[in-house]
Amino acid sequence: MARLKCVVKYDGSGFYGFQVQPTNRTVQGVLERVLKEMHKGVEIRLQASGRTDTGVHAIGQVIHFDSTYDIPEENWKRALNTLLPDDIYIQEVIKVSEEFHARYSVSEKEYHYFVRNLVEPDVFSRNYSYHFPYEVDIGKIKEACRYLEGTHDFTTFSSAKSTIKGEKIRTLYHASCIKHGSDIEFIFRGSGFLYNMVRIMVSVLLDIGQGRRKPEDIPILLEKRDRQQVGKTISPNGLYLWKVKYNEENKII
Amino acid sequence: MARLKCVVKYDGSGFYGFQVQPTNRTVQGVLERVLKEMHKGVEIRLQASGRTDTGVHAIGQVIHFDSTYDIPEENWKRALNTLLPDDIYIQEVIKVSEEFHARYSVSEKEYHYFVRNLVEPDVFSRNYSYHFPYEVDIGKIKEACRYLEGTHDFTTFSSAKSTIKGEKIRTLYHASCIKHGSDIEFIFRGSGFLYNMVRIMVSVLLDIGQGRRKPEDIPILLEKRDRQQVGKTISPNGLYLWKVKYNEENKII
Repeated sequence: MARLKCVVKYDGSGFYGFQVQPTNRTVQGVLERVLKEMHKGVEIRLQASGRTDTGVHAIGQVIHFDSTYDIPEENWKRALNTLLPDDIYIQEVIKVSEEFHARYSVSEKEYHYFVRNLVEPDVFSRNYSYHFPYEVDIGKIKEACRYLEGTHDFTTFSSAKSTIKGEKIRTLYHASCIKHGSDIEFIFRGSGFLYNMVRIMVSVLLDIGQGRRKPEDIPILLEKRDRQQVGKTISPNGLYLWKVKYNEENKII
Repeated sequence: MARLKCVVKYDGSGFYGFQVQPTNRTVQGVLERVLKEMHKGVEIRLQASGRTDTGVHAIGQVIHFDSTYDIPEENWKRALNTLLPDDIYIQEVIKVSEEFHARYSVSEKEYHYFVRNLVEPDVFSRNYSYHFPYEVDIGKIKEACRYLEGTHDFTTFSSAKSTIKGEKIRTLYHASCIKHGSDIEFIFRGSGFLYNMVRIMVSVLLDIGQGRRKPEDIPILLEKRDRQQVGKTISPNGLYLWKVKYNEENKII
């Protein structure tokens, strides 16, 4: 039995999110159908670093599964990509030890969020970037990002519907914002993220960029631990699961 | 009665081409449905500079239609964009005289074709760029472009199924190719283009870039006037109707 770790890229536009569903097209559903096909009808259950919602993209989602096949890594990659539709692509396949778990072994996750800051909408980026037509003060957003970094209770910045029990304390190692021409790119790295956390943080950061709030509001909002204090969860279209890091690679050489 | 000229941008991925069809979703179909809605159920027939095939995009398609409404240009634009789906966008609306015709008044058309020249395919550009994983000599393509410029019989470079009767002599004012990182952009400007002409030219130019043909083959191929001499018509996904020019603006001030 071999455990395979795969780095997966997908365009979320054509999926009802990651997690398998009985009828809707999902990333996990498509991947498991292809794995079943490769294994002559035997169901193969995969584990992912986490789910992504409808419309959310991935550059470096990580999954693992177990197989009785003894195939070189490069051939796994080729075989899977041949069977997969063109909106999912396996970037890398690595044989790992059985200690590796795509979800439980995660040490850090990185998300990027893209905003197209132009007055007029763009038909070509509508699924890949959030259209925000208002003037933005990037300096203010950068200031606010610094307040988000660190270990905080992120209740204010997570979905009230969250099914996660227990504490909502997370550590954000990095939060930043860069402007490239008319695109704004947000980068977040953390030990873990709560449900909708990136989308709610970006929504508040854009409020700050627009002058509707101040950077110094961030510590006050964190303190309140109340989702009602902030505006709506921003569109999933601009969100990318960029990278997932693990403490140990667990690569088998 | 007012004649309105519109510059239209669309993402061709979600359409069965431009021309109206009884059941499939087309650009003309959607535009005419919206015009009918605006005109309280009265059918409005539009004219375009030309059709685009399934999967072909437009940055500057031009259409015209006649309306009994007397609305300022900016309001036309806003009203249409409010009713249109987010893969079609009206860039500009101008009132023109009745001499203007989106198809018959065309003086020049410009097409761009994008190629993503990377070994691995990219899930995000699959609908917007043609994936070509082989090494390319851009210098050779540029040399070949010069042979395409000018007035020639383009029979070799047009669909044999073409319904256009008569001569296939056209004037290509400009043919060029630029490399930006891993993207190759082809630019063509001409008095008119035959069916599939850009897609067949790019296919041959990539053969030349790959070393499978020589730039000097172009005049020989033109001379043969035979579609069978060249390879397949390349994918529509990389093709953009970029701009349509008219001799006179016919703008009403």
